[in-house]
Amino acid sequence: MHNDSVGIVTPQVARFDVPFTLASGVTLPGFELVFETYGILNATASNAVLICHALSGNHHVAGFHAATESVPGWWDNMIGPGKPIDTRRFYVICCNNLGGCHGSTGPSSFNPSTGKPFGSSFPLVTVEDWVRTQAMLADHLGIECFAAVVGGSLGGMQVLAWSYLFPDRINHALVIAAASKLTAQNIGFNDVARQAILSDPDFHGGDYYQYGVVPARGLKLARMLGHITYLSDDVMGSRFGRLLQNGGISFGFGVEFEVESYLRYQGEKFSSIFDANTYLLMTRALDYFDPAHLHGNDLSLAFSRVRARTLVVSFTSDWRFSPERSREIVKALLDNRVDVSYAEITADYGHDAFLLEDPHYHALIRIYMQHITFGNDDGTPGL
Amino acid sequence: MHNDSVGIVTPQVARFDVPFTLASGVTLPGFELVFETYGILNATASNAVLICHALSGNHHVAGFHAATESVPGWWDNMIGPGKPIDTRRFYVICCNNLGGCHGSTGPSSFNPSTGKPFGSSFPLVTVEDWVRTQAMLADHLGIECFAAVVGGSLGGMQVLAWSYLFPDRINHALVIAAASKLTAQNIGFNDVARQAILSDPDFHGGDYYQYGVVPARGLKLARMLGHITYLSDDVMGSRFGRLLQNGGISFGFGVEFEVESYLRYQGEKFSSIFDANTYLLMTRALDYFDPAHLHGNDLSLAFSRVRARTLVVSFTSDWRFSPERSREIVKALLDNRVDVSYAEITADYGHDAFLLEDPHYHALIRIYMQHITFGNDDGTPGL
Repeated sequence: MHNDSVGIVTPQVARFDVPFTLASGVTLPGFELVFETYGILNATASNAVLICHALSGNHHVAGFHAATESVPGWWDNMIGPGKPIDTRRFYVICCNNLGGCHGSTGPSSFNPSTGKPFGSSFPLVTVEDWVRTQAMLADHLGIECFAAVVGGSLGGMQVLAWSYLFPDRINHALVIAAASKLTAQNIGFNDVARQAILSDPDFHGGDYYQYGVVPARGLKLARMLGHITYLSDDVMGSRFGRLLQNGGISFGFGVEFEVESYLRYQGEKFSSIFDANTYLLMTRALDYFDPAHLHGNDLSLAFSRVRARTLVVSFTSDWRFSPERSREIVKALLDNRVDVSYAEITADYGHDAFLLEDPHYHALIRIYMQHITFGNDDGTPGL
Repeated sequence: MHNDSVGIVTPQVARFDVPFTLASGVTLPGFELVFETYGILNATASNAVLICHALSGNHHVAGFHAATESVPGWWDNMIGPGKPIDTRRFYVICCNNLGGCHGSTGPSSFNPSTGKPFGSSFPLVTVEDWVRTQAMLADHLGIECFAAVVGGSLGGMQVLAWSYLFPDRINHALVIAAASKLTAQNIGFNDVARQAILSDPDFHGGDYYQYGVVPARGLKLARMLGHITYLSDDVMGSRFGRLLQNGGISFGFGVEFEVESYLRYQGEKFSSIFDANTYLLMTRALDYFDPAHLHGNDLSLAFSRVRARTLVVSFTSDWRFSPERSREIVKALLDNRVDVSYAEITADYGHDAFLLEDPHYHALIRIYMQHITFGNDDGTPGL
């Protein structure tokens, strides 16, 4: 474990025993959120940074759950002492979103009123629903206003929603590799992924838990497809090209090309650790997110309450959430005279670039975070 | 039926009762090819044009099988009296490729030696295998040399193979929306499609015929995914955008967005008319095609025997087989001093553009075909 790791971390659970009405109109009698925190909250509770996770992410952003683990949290390269989001200055929080499958209340959770997992009875949730529950978690932790809310991809959508839902509770917004809405192509990919799960005979209408099976075939296909769209054509070319596993072709449908091996492995692995109902729910939240929709498709109008200073970051080779989508966000923020900075990072990794340790990208986040001041903070590490 | 239609056409069958050894080393004792012809073969058999079909195509390129039909063959806008490939001058042939599911010998055909459909025992075939069987069909029809061989996508790969396998039997090559090999991304998409079929419980290892089922779920997913990649992001945006079927969202996984409706409909339709084993086989032929591979990855060397004058056409918005792939072909042909013309058509329809009636594209094919001379032909319509 390196000096710049947050080290061993322990998830916590916050329970909310109050009825919560979702955008769909469904009311949950209560729910739990599992979360992790790194760093120390200062006396004025003004140094808190909220991380919002993406489709397959969770609350375990940095560090390790045990000394024996070799793989840290999913954004460990970004968060830690001395890292771009420096835990010597900031108190960093991330929760597994409502509907998730890593400890927060979701489709695979036990439903006390039936004595069975929620399964198909778990309601769909929206990006705005997540942000409202995150605000409840902030209340629970005594945080009135975040120094920054940060997220990539679907996480970036949550950051946008924070900006317009709670303009007084967010000082800085870091919106990375995001979009203000999915394109038809994005929705199409999501629907193929969903159909793969929904049509898997082991799906059982979403109530597979009680059959002792999981729709692993469908979830594997969904993840394979996702992976192709997270990478650029170029990086797939340079990483795999047309390399053959065994040097020659075998005239069959087994694994022959390296890229097949990679995708199938990723699909298999994911299908053994992720819940299919959560995957369905997360993709639908992606599809539905469209803040301009309720404002005559005018994104500038949708952002009229936004006050947070904002950094928007995109990656040149990201064809899932292309730089054009980020520029739409920037334009709508500028229309509202929001203090916004925009960086288009030259990177060949596609959408996945936001998770990787690109020096230019990390230097940018580092310096942006260094310039965030709060309370009596003088900008130097340590509290 | 318009004056420029080839009218009512009748498929014919050619039977080859000779052992045919495939690239895989497997020998078929014999096979049948179903084909159609339009126009009249001239006395010197010098006005023949071969059309090579793509992944989901077949021999029925133009005209109608019955006066009651409303949908003509798949490239009817290109082929007919007065059309770009003018059947008043040319004798046009297209066969369903070996391994197909529209009448040529393939996985769903009856295997006389077992009394059952071939199913999983049908061997994989390559682009070069197809071209060799097409040459046998040409022999059968008394055609020593084609005035032109024409194809788009996987069909364009066959045109390339014609050029280097039978340089003396092809005067003009029209290579449209093609590539000399798939990229890792292409192979990845194909593998997701194949895994969808292979993992469908109704697939039964490829021998589903005897169970009275078809792997329709898998084939539907494969086709949905295919459709996304055949269209550009822009054209999906302009055709479907984020339009909702019923005006609002319903918080479920049914059809809500127009694009979902379109993709599911296309998937359903295809899965009811196409054979899954043929789909698997066709995608593997796509993956395997790589003429440079046996020549030290030197495409120019692979094309060293090519003599046919060549027209290469690509479409700006085609991200499945991008213009860059076509330019690689042009470069390798120029290295061999082949007489090659290249056109990059500005079109927003993506890969599907090659099937559509773009005025610029059709004018180009028309004028190119008009300049093809043969035997005693003076270039005017009629023989």
